[in-house]
Amino acid sequence: MSDRQKRFFLSEDEIPRQWYNIQADMVNKPLPMIDPRTHQPVKAEDLYRVFCEECVHQELNMTDRWIDIPEKVRDMYKFYRSTPLVRAYGLEEALGTPAHIYFKNESVSPVGSHKLNSAIAQAYYAKQQGIKSVTTETGAGQWGAALSYAASVFGLEAAVYQVKISYNQKPYRRNIMQTFGAQVTPSPSMSTRAGKDIINKNPNCQGSLGTAISEAVELCRTTENCRYTLGSVMNHVTLHQTIIGLEAEKQMRLAGEYPDIVIACFGGGSNFGGISFPFMRHNLSGEKHTRFIAAEPESCPKLTKGVFQYDFGDEAGYTPMIPMFTLGHEFMPANIHAGGLRYHGGGSVVSQLKKDGLMEAVDVQQIETFDAAMLFAKTEGIIPAPESAHAIAATIREAKRCVETGEEKVILFNLTGHGLIDMAAYDQYISGSLHNYATTEDEIHRFTDTLEQII
Amino acid sequence: MSDRQKRFFLSEDEIPRQWYNIQADMVNKPLPMIDPRTHQPVKAEDLYRVFCEECVHQELNMTDRWIDIPEKVRDMYKFYRSTPLVRAYGLEEALGTPAHIYFKNESVSPVGSHKLNSAIAQAYYAKQQGIKSVTTETGAGQWGAALSYAASVFGLEAAVYQVKISYNQKPYRRNIMQTFGAQVTPSPSMSTRAGKDIINKNPNCQGSLGTAISEAVELCRTTENCRYTLGSVMNHVTLHQTIIGLEAEKQMRLAGEYPDIVIACFGGGSNFGGISFPFMRHNLSGEKHTRFIAAEPESCPKLTKGVFQYDFGDEAGYTPMIPMFTLGHEFMPANIHAGGLRYHGGGSVVSQLKKDGLMEAVDVQQIETFDAAMLFAKTEGIIPAPESAHAIAATIREAKRCVETGEEKVILFNLTGHGLIDMAAYDQYISGSLHNYATTEDEIHRFTDTLEQII
Repeated sequence: MSDRQKRFFLSEDEIPRQWYNIQADMVNKPLPMIDPRTHQPVKAEDLYRVFCEECVHQELNMTDRWIDIPEKVRDMYKFYRSTPLVRAYGLEEALGTPAHIYFKNESVSPVGSHKLNSAIAQAYYAKQQGIKSVTTETGAGQWGAALSYAASVFGLEAAVYQVKISYNQKPYRRNIMQTFGAQVTPSPSMSTRAGKDIINKNPNCQGSLGTAISEAVELCRTTENCRYTLGSVMNHVTLHQTIIGLEAEKQMRLAGEYPDIVIACFGGGSNFGGISFPFMRHNLSGEKHTRFIAAEPESCPKLTKGVFQYDFGDEAGYTPMIPMFTLGHEFMPANIHAGGLRYHGGGSVVSQLKKDGLMEAVDVQQIETFDAAMLFAKTEGIIPAPESAHAIAATIREAKRCVETGEEKVILFNLTGHGLIDMAAYDQYISGSLHNYATTEDEIHRFTDTLEQII
Repeated sequence: MSDRQKRFFLSEDEIPRQWYNIQADMVNKPLPMIDPRTHQPVKAEDLYRVFCEECVHQELNMTDRWIDIPEKVRDMYKFYRSTPLVRAYGLEEALGTPAHIYFKNESVSPVGSHKLNSAIAQAYYAKQQGIKSVTTETGAGQWGAALSYAASVFGLEAAVYQVKISYNQKPYRRNIMQTFGAQVTPSPSMSTRAGKDIINKNPNCQGSLGTAISEAVELCRTTENCRYTLGSVMNHVTLHQTIIGLEAEKQMRLAGEYPDIVIACFGGGSNFGGISFPFMRHNLSGEKHTRFIAAEPESCPKLTKGVFQYDFGDEAGYTPMIPMFTLGHEFMPANIHAGGLRYHGGGSVVSQLKKDGLMEAVDVQQIETFDAAMLFAKTEGIIPAPESAHAIAATIREAKRCVETGEEKVILFNLTGHGLIDMAAYDQYISGSLHNYATTEDEIHRFTDTLEQII
């Protein structure tokens, strides 16, 4: 490991006071969400029963470039922000690359990931609106832990449906949610109609994110003064995550550099958009020509092998239809350790940007991501989350290209979280029992038979 | 949870350049270590085969108040230091106390605890001396993880003996050590004479810290260019930890306050000394009258119920005899979750200070520590390590006293680490299956029959 590393911080006063809403700057706006029954665009009022009003307004806001961060949310951000921007000298040296590698270290949040940036905002808006409880789903538990924390901050009850296999296999994050006072239920459960239907069909069902979403939405719809919250995919979630890129832009200025390439892992798109969009605005204005690369698992390749069309956000089809790069809402990704990337589609904004060629995507096999994670741990001293390791792997590919070309490219990636609660995955890697998973054409395209194609 | 919290940082330039050696200021110096065969004080040369020379000099240095921190060690400190000093408004509000509560958050280090402060220094000195490998023991694994990280930084091989029950029950920290490249062996093992003797006597032995120390020392003695390292107890370890208190002193100045009470959990004494000694020096000079409180488990009460006398540092009796408050080196503490506090004795400096009335000690039952940990998590958003929870419990006791007296006391405690890898303990607490353990007089005093009393 290197003994060199350089960290850049912002003072409290320099922490951004507004989020950046890229929808205002997009030439091709994202297509609207569609009501599956009427095939008409979803209106704000249609969403109020599920999401807080302020989140709905942000979701549909195509005009305001800057959205004020409420003072209370900023106060909570100060618990852990600014997060460090780090020059990764150790990784550079190990690769022998002339590239300058920086990462934004979101793992320093109290729950260990960037998810808190939106959880705080969503819980705050719920509280403001007089809501008493929030529901959500979670897989590995990063989002559920963040929402539980945020709900505790604002005195809301939180009910989290956790995919059953994760509930049983990864008890630590469940315990974290419970420590913050959340009610955690393994999904599918007997507490909802959606859950009962699935259990009746298959009593041993171990659950999926799509099923857990259906249960959380149903609980929200059947509970007074309750709203549903989401950890990615939606535009307002990505909006909240732009705090990452806005801070990074200021910190890169402290470092005297500007990124040639920005890289992030990709599940639903919120951390990718969060770090990318503030830089992408300078591409949209023609000032800069940064490349933006989304790194997704080869076993869940929505951007690299999916299709751009309307699809549901959940398995049961409770949500509106969303214009997305998708593998189909019934796609069952392999059981890779990067649970946060096991989602079938990308959000509407990111999907539009991908369609318009404003960003790139690469897919990475599981073992390559752990090769990258191990090298990063040994050179930079931080054990990354399996999700974040996808961004590291893509960064290493680009840095190696610089070895060949001799270019001193400036690469910035998002370290979304630490892997301290994912050590079982590292154990498998070290003991040689970790596998790659390929996605076959059959799996990817089987949804087109059942999905109503609107585009 | 409160939405108020205030954090204080130092700039890189303000990070202290020297450690504070309290031995120079003590009126009653600590008694020397004794060779058990000759009953003569141990000389520096006697220790060179086991410890690095620079560490031995620091251990025995009674004259130099300030010891320079090597530039390379400072460079590594900058990876995570300064650590935040935090005003815990949320905890204050929950207690309704007029006290001002601050904590030093050492959990932000890459391995999640303060242990890295000394691991980096010990690995650096080993490298400087041309040493090729280091050995150590670990229980729950905080120290082992820190040493593995530090050894990786300086290109040393690391061999860690981990108490067998922890090796099997807490695989995550073992995996962290392995991720940083360390060789981790469950103790007792067949790789040492000490281990074999114990296995022959009891094939199902689950190990103890004392046994693991014996194995690590034996491996060091039988290996060329190898030295043994230790995570607490010794004076040079505590010296390295004074970076905590020296930073805190500057940060308290930024907050415009000075502590009336400083509180830390107590295993061997290094985190306690680390945060306390820089403030205690103003007591020794007569300027200040701060109280210093060591919080230990009721199930391992060396300071509150032990005896001040010479004892061995390990079970097999490989070490010199150390003047310490001790429960006897064969004392077997109950299997509490705060594995880092399950050690029979305190270091010689801390023991002398306790004997001279310059500090206090309290003991806390396991359930009270988890009551405190849960309240802290819910009010400050950080899930503390079970060890750190002892300091939180003692802090809450003092803050509650201020409710009664109305005094606005300033209390500072050391948050040594986070509990993200100890969630199984929280699960037990939440599900009501956590127990208290009382220490009986029989257990405490049984060692006096077998221990040669030199004092």
